[in-house]
Amino acid sequence: MRIDIQFVPFPLNANFLSNRAVVVIDVLRATSVIVHAMSQGAIEIIPVGTVEEAFQMAKTFPRGTTLLGGERGSRKIEGFDLGNSPKEYVAEKVKGKRLILTTTNGTKAFRLVSSGREIMVGSFFNIGATAQRCFELNKDLLIFPSGDEGNFSLEDTVCGGMLIDVILRKGEETIGLTDSSRAAQLLYQRFRAHLVEALRLSNHGKDLIDLGLGDDLPYCSQTDIIDLVPIFREGVIK
Amino acid sequence: MRIDIQFVPFPLNANFLSNRAVVVIDVLRATSVIVHAMSQGAIEIIPVGTVEEAFQMAKTFPRGTTLLGGERGSRKIEGFDLGNSPKEYVAEKVKGKRLILTTTNGTKAFRLVSSGREIMVGSFFNIGATAQRCFELNKDLLIFPSGDEGNFSLEDTVCGGMLIDVILRKGEETIGLTDSSRAAQLLYQRFRAHLVEALRLSNHGKDLIDLGLGDDLPYCSQTDIIDLVPIFREGVIK
Repeated sequence: MRIDIQFVPFPLNANFLSNRAVVVIDVLRATSVIVHAMSQGAIEIIPVGTVEEAFQMAKTFPRGTTLLGGERGSRKIEGFDLGNSPKEYVAEKVKGKRLILTTTNGTKAFRLVSSGREIMVGSFFNIGATAQRCFELNKDLLIFPSGDEGNFSLEDTVCGGMLIDVILRKGEETIGLTDSSRAAQLLYQRFRAHLVEALRLSNHGKDLIDLGLGDDLPYCSQTDIIDLVPIFREGVIK
Repeated sequence: MRIDIQFVPFPLNANFLSNRAVVVIDVLRATSVIVHAMSQGAIEIIPVGTVEEAFQMAKTFPRGTTLLGGERGSRKIEGFDLGNSPKEYVAEKVKGKRLILTTTNGTKAFRLVSSGREIMVGSFFNIGATAQRCFELNKDLLIFPSGDEGNFSLEDTVCGGMLIDVILRKGEETIGLTDSSRAAQLLYQRFRAHLVEALRLSNHGKDLIDLGLGDDLPYCSQTDIIDLVPIFREGVIK
């Protein structure tokens, strides 16, 4: 088993992906939202690229079954039911509902890796469950940080590095690392004692703080509080 | 002044580059070779993409003025005068000579950034001189690790991180970092006490050790032993 991490979110060759398990990570905040919402009883989540697509998609489902969530410029979108803070996605709102989600980075990442063999949704919330699933799959793994508007993202990489660190502790001798996965693990180790510092140092984290959304940083830094791994398949996360 | 580092060596937009100073880094070993050779009296170095180009280019200069150097698969190329170890590039061989160089990663990187405003050649050897030049230029800076066959390279990134660290100590308050430049600085700090460990951990470093070329790792880890910054302009490094 070989673990790689793609530091810059650009499209990948379908042949390369078709043999690989993939973990998409967008700590701030799409994959944190997805994992949180599924743990609170959402039945499925459909990530879409644009606001227009989200409204169109919602019309295809019976009234009252579906909620619209996401952000542009980190803020809730006009006419949407929910923004992009995982704290909003609680059972009282999402239980038994389908969610249609559109965000700046995270929901686009799923399209970039849609040829992957199994596409998991990772975050600090479900890091242990995700590591266990990756280890059991025993396939070459590509970790895919969603990035920050096409650029490298510190918080997603630190989360990817933690995933690598936890998987390695399950059976280091059978696992090979690329230079990038080794670097991600080292970056995680730098912040291990205080993960929220990585989020505070990141440009995206600073933007959220400036917008008054800084509470999401410690919230999204919570590790291993959710024991499930949502899977993206044919456009839908379950 | 903003410092960015491009973790994966892919082509960049010419408009993006035209306002930026660029530092190309290939610690193992092209930019180490270039800096070393210039310090030993080579008059200029022409990086070319292919072995064929190198032979053709050599024919355009008077006999005896030009040496061919480089590698394929980390080994010296048949018919070439020199390989790709900086230790070979000593005054007895290169003083007063023009070098034509072709390597797997480093020489290609210069083409990818050829639209840059000023394109410097960086390595651990000349890290202090390079940092000083970048600080004096006071332009937005792109550090460009040459990578390992198109992938992220740990040793080049650690060298880039050291460059960032040294520049910041000259005037932190005026300098902005991206998430990637911050991550590179953190990776450098992890190896600061023993830089050669980063080279030994890297996949490229391991390959060189396996080929019996491991002596180049401590050699290329020497910092601040050369006080010049070669510049790439219109296809030629001087």
